[in-house]
Amino acid sequence: METNLASEPLYQRVAHHYRGAIRAGTLAPGARMPSVRSMTRLHQVSLSTALQACRHLEDEGLLEARPRSGYFVRMARRLAMPPAREPDTAEAVDAARYVGIHDRVSAFVAQGERSAVKHDFAAAYAAPEQYPGEALKNAAMRALRQHPDLLVKPVGSSGDAGLRAVLARRALDAGMQLTAHDIVITQGCVESLNVALRAVCQPGDTVAVESPAYYGLLQVLESLSLRALEIPTSPSTGLSIEALELALQTHERIQAVVVVPNFQNPLGCVMPDAHKQRLVELCSRFEVPVIEDDTYSALCDDGVPLKAVKAWDRDGSVIHCASLRKTLAPGLRLGWVSGGRWHARIQMLKYAQSRANEALSQITAAEFIASSAYDRHLARLRRLLKAQREQVAECIVASFPEGTRFNVPAGSLLLWVQLPEGCEAQRVSDAALERGIRVVPGPLFSNSKRYDNCLRISSGFPVTAEAQQGLRELGRIAGGLINGMP
Amino acid sequence: METNLASEPLYQRVAHHYRGAIRAGTLAPGARMPSVRSMTRLHQVSLSTALQACRHLEDEGLLEARPRSGYFVRMARRLAMPPAREPDTAEAVDAARYVGIHDRVSAFVAQGERSAVKHDFAAAYAAPEQYPGEALKNAAMRALRQHPDLLVKPVGSSGDAGLRAVLARRALDAGMQLTAHDIVITQGCVESLNVALRAVCQPGDTVAVESPAYYGLLQVLESLSLRALEIPTSPSTGLSIEALELALQTHERIQAVVVVPNFQNPLGCVMPDAHKQRLVELCSRFEVPVIEDDTYSALCDDGVPLKAVKAWDRDGSVIHCASLRKTLAPGLRLGWVSGGRWHARIQMLKYAQSRANEALSQITAAEFIASSAYDRHLARLRRLLKAQREQVAECIVASFPEGTRFNVPAGSLLLWVQLPEGCEAQRVSDAALERGIRVVPGPLFSNSKRYDNCLRISSGFPVTAEAQQGLRELGRIAGGLINGMP
Repeated sequence: METNLASEPLYQRVAHHYRGAIRAGTLAPGARMPSVRSMTRLHQVSLSTALQACRHLEDEGLLEARPRSGYFVRMARRLAMPPAREPDTAEAVDAARYVGIHDRVSAFVAQGERSAVKHDFAAAYAAPEQYPGEALKNAAMRALRQHPDLLVKPVGSSGDAGLRAVLARRALDAGMQLTAHDIVITQGCVESLNVALRAVCQPGDTVAVESPAYYGLLQVLESLSLRALEIPTSPSTGLSIEALELALQTHERIQAVVVVPNFQNPLGCVMPDAHKQRLVELCSRFEVPVIEDDTYSALCDDGVPLKAVKAWDRDGSVIHCASLRKTLAPGLRLGWVSGGRWHARIQMLKYAQSRANEALSQITAAEFIASSAYDRHLARLRRLLKAQREQVAECIVASFPEGTRFNVPAGSLLLWVQLPEGCEAQRVSDAALERGIRVVPGPLFSNSKRYDNCLRISSGFPVTAEAQQGLRELGRIAGGLINGMP
Repeated sequence: METNLASEPLYQRVAHHYRGAIRAGTLAPGARMPSVRSMTRLHQVSLSTALQACRHLEDEGLLEARPRSGYFVRMARRLAMPPAREPDTAEAVDAARYVGIHDRVSAFVAQGERSAVKHDFAAAYAAPEQYPGEALKNAAMRALRQHPDLLVKPVGSSGDAGLRAVLARRALDAGMQLTAHDIVITQGCVESLNVALRAVCQPGDTVAVESPAYYGLLQVLESLSLRALEIPTSPSTGLSIEALELALQTHERIQAVVVVPNFQNPLGCVMPDAHKQRLVELCSRFEVPVIEDDTYSALCDDGVPLKAVKAWDRDGSVIHCASLRKTLAPGLRLGWVSGGRWHARIQMLKYAQSRANEALSQITAAEFIASSAYDRHLARLRRLLKAQREQVAECIVASFPEGTRFNVPAGSLLLWVQLPEGCEAQRVSDAALERGIRVVPGPLFSNSKRYDNCLRISSGFPVTAEAQQGLRELGRIAGGLINGMP
């Protein structure tokens, strides 16, 4: 580089000076740049050349201009890393398979519970203190006082009518038109997925899923003796509608399509509305039910509600599943399902599987969600998650080996990190757990070997100096394991 | 009768006098008999003849002697009705069938929720006020105060360790040797049955069940595409071991046997210990797992713990399922399962089906069960249930049509009433519901027509004058529908 400096334009030379400082961390993320005036003195250049250098660095994503404040080093230096690799949709889709993921998931859960975890980057929800624990506790105590026989009185079979009513009201904002009668309360989204799949599939059937897919879904499929057909999924726009269409044309016995349209787990991508609409039209044409898991949509950075796939449902062929675990309280087991034309069967299956949920948590959640406190909580949580995500992304950029790729989603709390080829995520995960660092390795999200170099890293925690230390250590472990090196 | 009086022994004449008064209600149930001395004066007989008359009435079940208090009219005049008919074990067992009970159960649940029910004789648990609502409420509030982040913090995968420890301690009294690690907490016994059956069966398999069987179990079987093979079951000693042995010899693909050994639902019978032992040995020999639903055993009148079938388990082939819903709190969804040699698979299935239970109810229940308050509650509940059962039995004797048969179990809260042949229980149930009276008709408990004349009547409520009125009305409805009349 040095040798070319003389032939470079002046502004490039100035930019080069600061680019190095930013990459070295001398100018830390969020730091204010030296003033343009001081740059003119230091580099003996004109004001316009100094400004041009700053704009150039801004174009590179290293600086950001703040109105009336000048230039600052961007919080996330993510542009220093390439975006996540897109899937090759021309590649033939794998044959539908029984998943074979039970052992992996059970081992992962057991390993996590056995180990002394200092840094849990695996949990797909925010830290307890980022949820309204105090307000929910008070709501629960009020409910206990107001209904002294709450714990000893049985409840109706579809769940608390009050909770179903507020959920129906919230669904309106996501483009759905539901009433309380269209909703069954479940023990969380995993139970919703269970009853939804049991309502439309028989053992042996094939279910089209995103690739990579949430391991919880793959485990549900396996436990129900269903085959997973992994459809190429873009880290930026979600399930490939073209690839799904091809699969529906060529595979028999696809009995359902399961998608996470908003902030997909693990990719973090959001399906564009046009894709959601095409998905519904396509599946309706092939008479295949769509099951959507819409657990994360309330966690979008800008707070503008994302539409559910069910918003385009015209003939009851979309089953909508969701949960309050990520948005309201990880300690509550509250999900729900709206079953479209399979609703009666889903009601029956929920009853046959675990009867109605307890009343206390339903009343507690209903009171909180109906109040403006829920919106205030969501606004705060979104702000926190956005800042944490940027900070975690920064740490990854700073510490992970060259060749690492990832996108930073516009909401929620999951980062899908593609390590350089040859860097085995399972070995990274194992080595990290020995040091008290927990992440989810890529092989949990697929039946293929396609994600063996990927990690899912959560940003649902305050990025303290200690957490940064944990992320740096994780990056060092990954760097040390490239090409199988120790 | 009058004409024979002169030739009767003296003590018979005396007994006759009082028998008439007892049957007419002049001497009410629970009333003290006139003193033996006053009988000698009234009837001009010797003391030994008066005593002989009393003993004769005692043998007939009309009187009971209470130490140092004399004779009293028995609370239940049930001996005026014949005991429940025993099954014909020589009859060939029906072919194993997919149950086809979904619609019946769904209709029954929906019908009950739609109707204005004044008298709920269908609920298989005691009235809310007979459970420790206040103490549980206080325990829940304490738990919320002590763990302010309880609702926002996720929980471990097998359930609260404290609750599992106290359940293991209680299991010891039922003859089982378990540790907390052998227990998975579930959303109630129905979820326990689901994961137990899913652990040992594949769709299409046959499961041997009692006949009649709990409709919840039949529904679980149907929802899992399992076939039910109904084994003759005695209303007094439970599942016929001989009939089961024959079935195991002649049917292929029996992959599990499900029994309710203690206070079977709906029969109320208790399997003698010798039968339990033979059941375990038989199934072990045929390498078929036994799944026991031991939900009611703590409700035995005398408080002497009944043994679980698992007490005889030597090779891990018994899966023990239970629940706290009937004994502690109908509003809590807390069951458990101890999976023997399938325990790891059951843990995995529970995780894949609905994740871990919420912590609050587990901590609440654990605190209460660990204290002596639980034993005091159980003692009180047993006393209440015994008295209520006797009173309900009396009402049935007094109001139901001739030819009605039933046993009165020595615990729990279910009465299985065989109406006279030709009296259709479904019609009785429908007509009763129109008058606000809810019972469970026999067809819900079998895939055969064998119990079309049976009703399950709960005695889990205070037998007020109003409740007695409801039972009398039920008896009149049944009487009016004999042979399809009117």
